[in-house]
Amino acid sequence: MKICRYGPKGAEKPGLVDADGRIRDLSAHVADITPAEITPEGLARLKAIDPASLPLVEGDPRYGVPVNGIGKFLAIGLNYADHAREAGLEPPPEPIFFTKAISCLVGPNDDVMIPRGSAKTDWEVELGVVIGKTCRYVEQADALDHVAGYVLVNDVSERAFQKELGSQWDKGKGCDTFGPTGPWLVTPDEVGDCQALDMFLDVNGKRMQTGHTATMIFPVAECIAYVSRFITLQPGDLLITGTPPGVGEGQKPTMIFLKPGDRMHLGISKLGEQRQNVIAFDLEALA
Amino acid sequence: MKICRYGPKGAEKPGLVDADGRIRDLSAHVADITPAEITPEGLARLKAIDPASLPLVEGDPRYGVPVNGIGKFLAIGLNYADHAREAGLEPPPEPIFFTKAISCLVGPNDDVMIPRGSAKTDWEVELGVVIGKTCRYVEQADALDHVAGYVLVNDVSERAFQKELGSQWDKGKGCDTFGPTGPWLVTPDEVGDCQALDMFLDVNGKRMQTGHTATMIFPVAECIAYVSRFITLQPGDLLITGTPPGVGEGQKPTMIFLKPGDRMHLGISKLGEQRQNVIAFDLEALA
Repeated sequence: MKICRYGPKGAEKPGLVDADGRIRDLSAHVADITPAEITPEGLARLKAIDPASLPLVEGDPRYGVPVNGIGKFLAIGLNYADHAREAGLEPPPEPIFFTKAISCLVGPNDDVMIPRGSAKTDWEVELGVVIGKTCRYVEQADALDHVAGYVLVNDVSERAFQKELGSQWDKGKGCDTFGPTGPWLVTPDEVGDCQALDMFLDVNGKRMQTGHTATMIFPVAECIAYVSRFITLQPGDLLITGTPPGVGEGQKPTMIFLKPGDRMHLGISKLGEQRQNVIAFDLEALA
Repeated sequence: MKICRYGPKGAEKPGLVDADGRIRDLSAHVADITPAEITPEGLARLKAIDPASLPLVEGDPRYGVPVNGIGKFLAIGLNYADHAREAGLEPPPEPIFFTKAISCLVGPNDDVMIPRGSAKTDWEVELGVVIGKTCRYVEQADALDHVAGYVLVNDVSERAFQKELGSQWDKGKGCDTFGPTGPWLVTPDEVGDCQALDMFLDVNGKRMQTGHTATMIFPVAECIAYVSRFITLQPGDLLITGTPPGVGEGQKPTMIFLKPGDRMHLGISKLGEQRQNVIAFDLEALA
């Protein structure tokens, strides 16, 4: 099952994506896709609905973040050995995690804005996991039972804010528009093995990142189990699991960062694609 | 005005604290204290109510977190020169911030639980600021206009998780029960100068922390303005502003950490006091 939210920002409606990739309107069944709709009980109710029975959505609407009311947005760092190497760091002995501010969440194809004073805004294609059942000190073997679904995320990052203004990465991870998420929340039965997914990210038509979730240092189940020893994950929490090589700061001989007018295009197999325009800082546009 | 939420966990009711320190039931006016009730408009509606007209709450109910639906829980680190020194670190050239998981929020007098595997659970009395109006690239001179009120917070921290398991502090800051908050949200008119507040924290009756908000390296307005350059603060977000000297890891000649049976007692002038029992890890009790 592919779950989505579509329509203008702040007025998104719930939808299912049918076998032909068309959006069907779920509004007659649920008012929105919130954490309550993606618990095991909530998902079972949605699965009982035949998408063909739902009204077809006309046109080509905007996609929003597929879950409204994400509570925590946590992120694993340096989880691909190759990416750690390009960042000039040893692969970590245990998962590193940090936090993205929930206020940075935007739809998958919404504009990404360069923050005021930024010279090092960078991209990161990542596999996101949305939690459906509370995870507290879960074992790795049980961890995936707590996943409501998977989602594509661009973990947009400002490298100077992240690394040059102090030791704590959160400073460069939560700027407005730094969390494009979607288009769909895809349930585990449809994704199959989450360690067997291809990933890519292009900038201005040039392939920058090519990856595969098989090369994670800490697989998804281990990430969930590990985080749950420190922070309780709750339905609607989003955990992103690291990025493969090819980010801007890893480019040789010169780092490359985003500038207004750039276009990003990224995807993960089974989870869909995103396309973002990079725009200049504009305080009015954020309000 | 002192705003609170009182009653059993998960079933708190909204209240105002009257001039005699007694809780008055606000339920006839608002269903709960959420971000909507602490915007300038929300606060104006509450201020128009005469506390004496509200039913007196009998007995000695539990206090909950004074705002339900805190979206982000951000924290400034090393913001008192003396505390930075006791942690063996230079005062930072600009504010450091990190994130506490919202799932760690508990009432001001709820138990604090030692996490599984913890040997270094520590205390930190802190001044918390609850945002009432969206802050995005705000100037320092305007920052305090965005504050709904002030609140007492114990920024409970696990030092090994924070500093020995990698570089990112969030790992040691968001364990369940690590965010006692309250008893009251006190509006700025009643607090007056937020840089003129005394702070203390006792463990088992012994004074460990003595501080004053005048000795912050970066005053509250600067903290808000600074964070708002990186992360947009929204109504209901909670920002805590650092702790004065006297934490457990700063004790000489030997660090002291919390153990089951310990009792913490802390307070900030005008914001009330908290008393927590420290309890052993108990997975069942968290469920």
